[in-house]
Amino acid sequence: MDKKLITFGEVMMRLSPPGYTMFSQASSFDLVYGGGEANVAISCGYLGMKAAHVTRFPDNALGKAATQFLRKHWLGTKDVIYGDNMLGKYFLQKGAVHRSSEVIYEREGSAFSLIKPDMINWEEVLKGADWFHWTGITPAISEGAAMCCLEAIKTANKMGIKVSGDINSRQNMWKYGKTMQEVMPELVKNTDIVITSSRGIKEMFGLGEVGVGFSEAAKELMNTFPRIEKVVGKTRKSISASHQQIQGKMWTGKKYIKADKLDVTHVIDRVGTGDAFASGIIFGLLYYQDDDLQALNFATAACALKHTVVGDVNMVSLDNVLSLMKGDTSGKIKR
Amino acid sequence: MDKKLITFGEVMMRLSPPGYTMFSQASSFDLVYGGGEANVAISCGYLGMKAAHVTRFPDNALGKAATQFLRKHWLGTKDVIYGDNMLGKYFLQKGAVHRSSEVIYEREGSAFSLIKPDMINWEEVLKGADWFHWTGITPAISEGAAMCCLEAIKTANKMGIKVSGDINSRQNMWKYGKTMQEVMPELVKNTDIVITSSRGIKEMFGLGEVGVGFSEAAKELMNTFPRIEKVVGKTRKSISASHQQIQGKMWTGKKYIKADKLDVTHVIDRVGTGDAFASGIIFGLLYYQDDDLQALNFATAACALKHTVVGDVNMVSLDNVLSLMKGDTSGKIKR
Amino acid sequence: MDKKLITFGEVMMRLSPPGYTMFSQASSFDLVYGGGEANVAISCGYLGMKAAHVTRFPDNALGKAATQFLRKHWLGTKDVIYGDNMLGKYFLQKGAVHRSSEVIYEREGSAFSLIKPDMINWEEVLKGADWFHWTGITPAISEGAAMCCLEAIKTANKMGIKVSGDINSRQNMWKYGKTMQEVMPELVKNTDIVITSSRGIKEMFGLGEVGVGFSEAAKELMNTFPRIEKVVGKTRKSISASHQQIQGKMWTGKKYIKADKLDVTHVIDRVGTGDAFASGIIFGLLYYQDDDLQALNFATAACALKHTVVGDVNMVSLDNVLSLMKGDTSGKIKR
Amino acid sequence: MDKKLITFGEVMMRLSPPGYTMFSQASSFDLVYGGGEANVAISCGYLGMKAAHVTRFPDNALGKAATQFLRKHWLGTKDVIYGDNMLGKYFLQKGAVHRSSEVIYEREGSAFSLIKPDMINWEEVLKGADWFHWTGITPAISEGAAMCCLEAIKTANKMGIKVSGDINSRQNMWKYGKTMQEVMPELVKNTDIVITSSRGIKEMFGLGEVGVGFSEAAKELMNTFPRIEKVVGKTRKSISASHQQIQGKMWTGKKYIKADKLDVTHVIDRVGTGDAFASGIIFGLLYYQDDDLQALNFATAACALKHTVVGDVNMVSLDNVLSLMKGDTSGKIKR
Amino acid sequence: MDKKLITFGEVMMRLSPPGYTMFSQASSFDLVYGGGEANVAISCGYLGMKAAHVTRFPDNALGKAATQFLRKHWLGTKDVIYGDNMLGKYFLQKGAVHRSSEVIYEREGSAFSLIKPDMINWEEVLKGADWFHWTGITPAISEGAAMCCLEAIKTANKMGIKVSGDINSRQNMWKYGKTMQEVMPELVKNTDIVITSSRGIKEMFGLGEVGVGFSEAAKELMNTFPRIEKVVGKTRKSISASHQQIQGKMWTGKKYIKADKLDVTHVIDRVGTGDAFASGIIFGLLYYQDDDLQALNFATAACALKHTVVGDVNMVSLDNVLSLMKGDTSGKIKR
Amino acid sequence: MDKKLITFGEVMMRLSPPGYTMFSQASSFDLVYGGGEANVAISCGYLGMKAAHVTRFPDNALGKAATQFLRKHWLGTKDVIYGDNMLGKYFLQKGAVHRSSEVIYEREGSAFSLIKPDMINWEEVLKGADWFHWTGITPAISEGAAMCCLEAIKTANKMGIKVSGDINSRQNMWKYGKTMQEVMPELVKNTDIVITSSRGIKEMFGLGEVGVGFSEAAKELMNTFPRIEKVVGKTRKSISASHQQIQGKMWTGKKYIKADKLDVTHVIDRVGTGDAFASGIIFGLLYYQDDDLQALNFATAACALKHTVVGDVNMVSLDNVLSLMKGDTSGKIKR
Repeated sequence: MDKKLITFGEVMMRLSPPGYTMFSQASSFDLVYGGGEANVAISCGYLGMKAAHVTRFPDNALGKAATQFLRKHWLGTKDVIYGDNMLGKYFLQKGAVHRSSEVIYEREGSAFSLIKPDMINWEEVLKGADWFHWTGITPAISEGAAMCCLEAIKTANKMGIKVSGDINSRQNMWKYGKTMQEVMPELVKNTDIVITSSRGIKEMFGLGEVGVGFSEAAKELMNTFPRIEKVVGKTRKSISASHQQIQGKMWTGKKYIKADKLDVTHVIDRVGTGDAFASGIIFGLLYYQDDDLQALNFATAACALKHTVVGDVNMVSLDNVLSLMKGDTSGKIKR
Repeated sequence: MDKKLITFGEVMMRLSPPGYTMFSQASSFDLVYGGGEANVAISCGYLGMKAAHVTRFPDNALGKAATQFLRKHWLGTKDVIYGDNMLGKYFLQKGAVHRSSEVIYEREGSAFSLIKPDMINWEEVLKGADWFHWTGITPAISEGAAMCCLEAIKTANKMGIKVSGDINSRQNMWKYGKTMQEVMPELVKNTDIVITSSRGIKEMFGLGEVGVGFSEAAKELMNTFPRIEKVVGKTRKSISASHQQIQGKMWTGKKYIKADKLDVTHVIDRVGTGDAFASGIIFGLLYYQDDDLQALNFATAACALKHTVVGDVNMVSLDNVLSLMKGDTSGKIKR
Repeated sequence: MDKKLITFGEVMMRLSPPGYTMFSQASSFDLVYGGGEANVAISCGYLGMKAAHVTRFPDNALGKAATQFLRKHWLGTKDVIYGDNMLGKYFLQKGAVHRSSEVIYEREGSAFSLIKPDMINWEEVLKGADWFHWTGITPAISEGAAMCCLEAIKTANKMGIKVSGDINSRQNMWKYGKTMQEVMPELVKNTDIVITSSRGIKEMFGLGEVGVGFSEAAKELMNTFPRIEKVVGKTRKSISASHQQIQGKMWTGKKYIKADKLDVTHVIDRVGTGDAFASGIIFGLLYYQDDDLQALNFATAACALKHTVVGDVNMVSLDNVLSLMKGDTSGKIKR
Repeated sequence: MDKKLITFGEVMMRLSPPGYTMFSQASSFDLVYGGGEANVAISCGYLGMKAAHVTRFPDNALGKAATQFLRKHWLGTKDVIYGDNMLGKYFLQKGAVHRSSEVIYEREGSAFSLIKPDMINWEEVLKGADWFHWTGITPAISEGAAMCCLEAIKTANKMGIKVSGDINSRQNMWKYGKTMQEVMPELVKNTDIVITSSRGIKEMFGLGEVGVGFSEAAKELMNTFPRIEKVVGKTRKSISASHQQIQGKMWTGKKYIKADKLDVTHVIDRVGTGDAFASGIIFGLLYYQDDDLQALNFATAACALKHTVVGDVNMVSLDNVLSLMKGDTSGKIKR
Repeated sequence: MDKKLITFGEVMMRLSPPGYTMFSQASSFDLVYGGGEANVAISCGYLGMKAAHVTRFPDNALGKAATQFLRKHWLGTKDVIYGDNMLGKYFLQKGAVHRSSEVIYEREGSAFSLIKPDMINWEEVLKGADWFHWTGITPAISEGAAMCCLEAIKTANKMGIKVSGDINSRQNMWKYGKTMQEVMPELVKNTDIVITSSRGIKEMFGLGEVGVGFSEAAKELMNTFPRIEKVVGKTRKSISASHQQIQGKMWTGKKYIKADKLDVTHVIDRVGTGDAFASGIIFGLLYYQDDDLQALNFATAACALKHTVVGDVNMVSLDNVLSLMKGDTSGKIKR
Repeated sequence: MDKKLITFGEVMMRLSPPGYTMFSQASSFDLVYGGGEANVAISCGYLGMKAAHVTRFPDNALGKAATQFLRKHWLGTKDVIYGDNMLGKYFLQKGAVHRSSEVIYEREGSAFSLIKPDMINWEEVLKGADWFHWTGITPAISEGAAMCCLEAIKTANKMGIKVSGDINSRQNMWKYGKTMQEVMPELVKNTDIVITSSRGIKEMFGLGEVGVGFSEAAKELMNTFPRIEKVVGKTRKSISASHQQIQGKMWTGKKYIKADKLDVTHVIDRVGTGDAFASGIIFGLLYYQDDDLQALNFATAACALKHTVVGDVNMVSLDNVLSLMKGDTSGKIKR
């Protein structure tokens, strides 16, 4: 597909004890890189879009290695910038059945958190792009990151580039003196496609009810911010760390639709499945144009498949997603 | 069991990204060797038969290493021959749940594909053997391989050695100018025990109907080729890449019998499970002599167990198979 | 929790082929250490108790390394003693679904089996302890080990320290000339909390019936040995090597209670789950004091969680157990 | 440095038993990719030039993975093309001291060997480039590869782009019906900077004497092909597989110069050291412009450093090379 | 030896690409822990002293794992404290021959850097100790760390505990607003045994000359700070990253002595060799009491041996050091 | 070479911490198998002889796996017998430079040590053999092993099969009640080719002087035992664990000859180098027939090459040895 996606956000080094071992057992860490927005870009790259990521890394061999990871996974990296300080990190101990996966973040003082509004020339960056995607993690990281994100969104608006935002974040991430409620409205109101949950809408804007009434909350959100075209979410049933069920849902502006539910009976890597869903929405809406239900089924299938891929990013092909979306759940060997 | 099996066919180097990682993530490959016929021989060796494999490898350190793999797993290798060119290879990316395993073959120009009819002295090779086993892959590889295989079958016929053939192959494997339909009848008609599916019988000989009527198709096949004593198959339900169900079936010449169904809920390695079934048929028919149902249950249990063994070959013991076949599905620790 | 546990028993080097590979495939072994009693101590250490283990290791680098393993996992090791001969070992081939795990023991001539009654100063060792735990494995190893264990139990009795015993062992372990039936009564009668099964009670003391009537057998046992306060067991349903169900049960002296059943659908490591249960009983009884049912639910949750931890020992935290025990089976990521 | 290099040639999958193990011991292979020309491009990329590589890969997941390797290591890959057949491969068993490293090539029928003259639009590819580099391996692979290489050289000539060629190959590589002596002159005569040895000049053109008189042979070569500006070589003393000495040499057209000799006392990976030398010549001539001796010392230092880098490609930085070239052989830790 | 050492300082997580691979090649990191002072304590522990380390770790699973590392390697950890923030880290890329090892530190905001003077009860901690050791790294980290270190030294002085300090640090480490020259004198003047170089003495105190005249500089230092009993250093010749020569030297207060030079021809891990030297001085002075030359030879041998041990810490035994110190450089197999 | 070698002796599981890590650092062990006599047989197999090994293994999966190792490395295993008890083991911690490798044996109670004289039918085993080789380790293990070895030697004598013995062992291995001096003469006097040192001859028979006068000691030995044709030894200079020098020497019965000295500057694995020397003597004497010096140079080259091969056994080819023996020490890559 000859469309180009730009994403913006922090990319972290992910360090995990091998297999199902715990932090107390590790004598080595498996190393990949990940971050919500770059995960989306890479997934779209594997599906066949052009994609580039914008971020800020430390100016050392680790920042270079992180860039090399993005390049390897098909992203453009010409607008990555470098400077002080360290590389953001997270440590992941993988769980199984009743034992939860555990994540320890180390993002404080990261090169990305020190980004400032004038560091990126967004007009230059967004030239030729069709879509810009951001997440609610970025404005939570630092005031600079939030401002930079807003700059990007507004530039995209001006240039006629579609904007999507996966707007949720955890309350406890906001440590720099501003609250989610102060910062998010300005960003969301300039966004075309919003990915969120009823909890997210309630927490940020006081609209709707948590856990029920996704369509009502979405409707209210669209009333408040008329630019929003669609509000997208998913229902996840966590039967255990090893068994998940996924079903996409969307308020299309006109009606409430749901995708076919998918049952992931043997989870390999749960991290990044939300980003796979977001990438599926972006790709699906472009690929199926007017057919929201197809797009939603596509996103749900992409999300389900990510549960079987090691690492943060969904490396499956377009064929993989289409085949599952069309109902082939057999996983038969391809020769 | 004091019986000796000879098998003939290509053995490939199998290269797989570790665990569930994908080709795009590999910085090393796990290495084993496999090929349908050698897989059968090795399984029979672990069950307690004498077994030897005949093949052609490149005359270099890789061909030697492949031979060493066969020797390690109890096969006689004195009739392996060496010459040009490369070692056949396949790359396996293991799937899970809805993500299929993917296989890339590299067999063109392999040392085995260059085998010629007069290279093996079959009378010498088959001396002292009780059983010869071939598969439909071999005649698909090259005309030389097909001719060599026919030589072996006819020599076995002459020497009073039982012949079994797992006759299926994929249409797209036949690239050397002859079709499955031209080559296979001559091989099948000299075979005593045929392992196949209704699809296989329909595709090759235009008999029966695909997917239904295994017993009818089998009956017609035996009418056409009166040497055939039994036609054996299995029903596989692929619930997902991680969950498979297996049930052996047989037209005994007199009646249609089915084995107990086995449910493999956590697949470790799906490759080679058909070969484990074939080895179970060979061993089972010899071990239980007149009791076809026992033999079929044995084969089904062997097949089910292979799903939990890493690599192409079934390394479980006779006790393992007998215990499952007798209904112990508990998998309790043996101390 | 400011309580201290002392355990006594053999610690073995555990050597396993990586992942699901078999002995015939190994070119390396994963290395951990384990033994029923030390497993209990370590689990209690991770839950927050003080714990120390007493054993005898060979006086070489391997004995030192085993001690270092215990220290790393929070145990006190000042009373470990060293001498001839080798380190006890066991080899574990991990199974899946219908393929059983297989264990090969090499304990003969181990440094622990050569322990003699006067080698440990139990009054010194038990000073400051609140609980002493032993298992039925120890008296099965050698007469010296049995005598040492009895010394420890009697000293604990004298010093007012609670004694628990997980009393089962396999008949075929008793090779030094005495039988289970000769040795065990003296040890059990001085024990406060007995962990066993109806089979264990029947085998050792001829009381009750195997498989049924746990509460009846337990009642008879307590009649025979009035010191015993509680008899604890668990029902395990082994659906396959990869799927287990667990439910704790207890004769409290007054009534028969059962814990909530837990369903472990994707087993990672089955070994040491009984020891995790025992550690849960010890910790649970101390933590919940008068509430036996809470203690039993705690033990069942600890046992279920161990099935997802690699190695012999349960390294989960108190929070992990409490959360599962309170019904959160979702395994959601903790960030 | 704001210069751009284009290279053209086959990139192979390199599979090696880990560490110093032999083919007969491997149960996995370490995986990297390499090829003489791409190795040069990547090294120049790490030194700070822009670099892109042109090649032909199979149109499957392995061809994609090879492309991803190039991207990861900073190369542009927009002109890589895809088609039949397999990926070229080589197997490397690393030697030490008196035990030689052993290489098994599998290039026959590779996607690159099937390249045809009109498949690459060289004017497009070379737009904006400052330098084109080829090696004597490419014309040895197939007639198509040779013709494609000549196309590229002539286009570069036309566009005023400097051309360098590392012209040696092994006689036994030429299997497609033409000889080195027939094919090479046309390629060499259009090349500006030639990297070779006195043996190479003698073998291909019958000029000079093997092993002695590098400057005489070079002089004769330049008389024969007047476009050539410089002839560059190196003297390697192979004390053992683990100990090598390197010294660059050059006939500058005016005089014969030699670099400082470097002593590599603990070789880590000998493969690709010639390519590192070539990359050093290209970078050095651009960086030092008129100072041939500096360029030669730079190339010798780059070559020496490559002996300590795992894989085919030299990933050291400009600072690493400059520091060694200026005489700091101490290898002191950089903090 | 029945002596007890207390050390104080930061312990970092050390992450290294496996073997000789570079940051750009890593898909996993080898994990150990290290820090100058803890390295000294662990080495003394392996030599047979009692040793404990005092530090501050983050209150999470990574801080626990770091503590477990110390415990495993024989240290007492009862005085480790926990709090905010992250765990200090360093990344190590191992070099060879002319390619330097490269280190990237991430210590800013570490839990240790946030330590404050009143957090450790030094009288409690030092009870029963015979020796306290500190390094010049600690006062460079933060004002809190410097003050804490001074507290410890003064308490040790008061309690009659010998104090040694390895006083060097890099100028560029001092980032918190005070200079080395402001902070160090107060610490050094209360120290009994100083380990440093002529460069260190010149930089900090303006005494002596860099690179020459170690004994003169040492003499001046002892004149300035009369508490100092001995000034110890070593001459290291770095022939390459893979070949180092080591020779201890000491101004005993009365004379200048030098140890036998040791030639380390095949370096395995260069990091922590200075700490191994310091541990050798501490142990040697206690073990040989009045014989400074023996102590210095012991330290030199310990230092040389560390070059062959993987990780930060010297795990060799007393026998290993004594044997080398007595001149057995043969490295013959011990059976 | 169409000659057949039979060897007899214990084969142990060898467990080593990876790379240069120490026992205290291991979380896995690399696994190979080795034993002096089998090492000789395997090396001869790789050189091109037929070879089979006779031993006794435990009747379990570990004994099977050990047999599979021998089969993989080309040995005949039809005369391996199985029974109680455990598999002999040794643990190897690899040293470097001044740090010695350390070995811990666990052979007590091994299946081999329990072998009894009548368990092997030597006439059957030795049928068709040209050479029988034994070592001084075997009679040191147990009386049964010693008797079995004598049986083999005498049968070989009777059948006209050449017998070689590498007769040394360590005094502290003899634990079963007999001394080296009591047992060895009977074995040595029936041996044709003796491999030993002047120390060995002195220790066992009181002949000659240790360390000097190899030829005098050899001469006296041959006077005492007239069957002996040649006495062979080697001078090893252990410059460090990483640097060894080797030179074969022989008293041919007529004169004292020495091989060219070889300098192994970067040792990879020192274990089994003596066995490689012995295999070189056996192969060399057969290959060069009357030329003792060639045979000795061959053995020295084989021994030198083994220092670069991982594991106990020398897997180099005949070409490798011939090339080094003829003076090519360059270790140049073979393509």
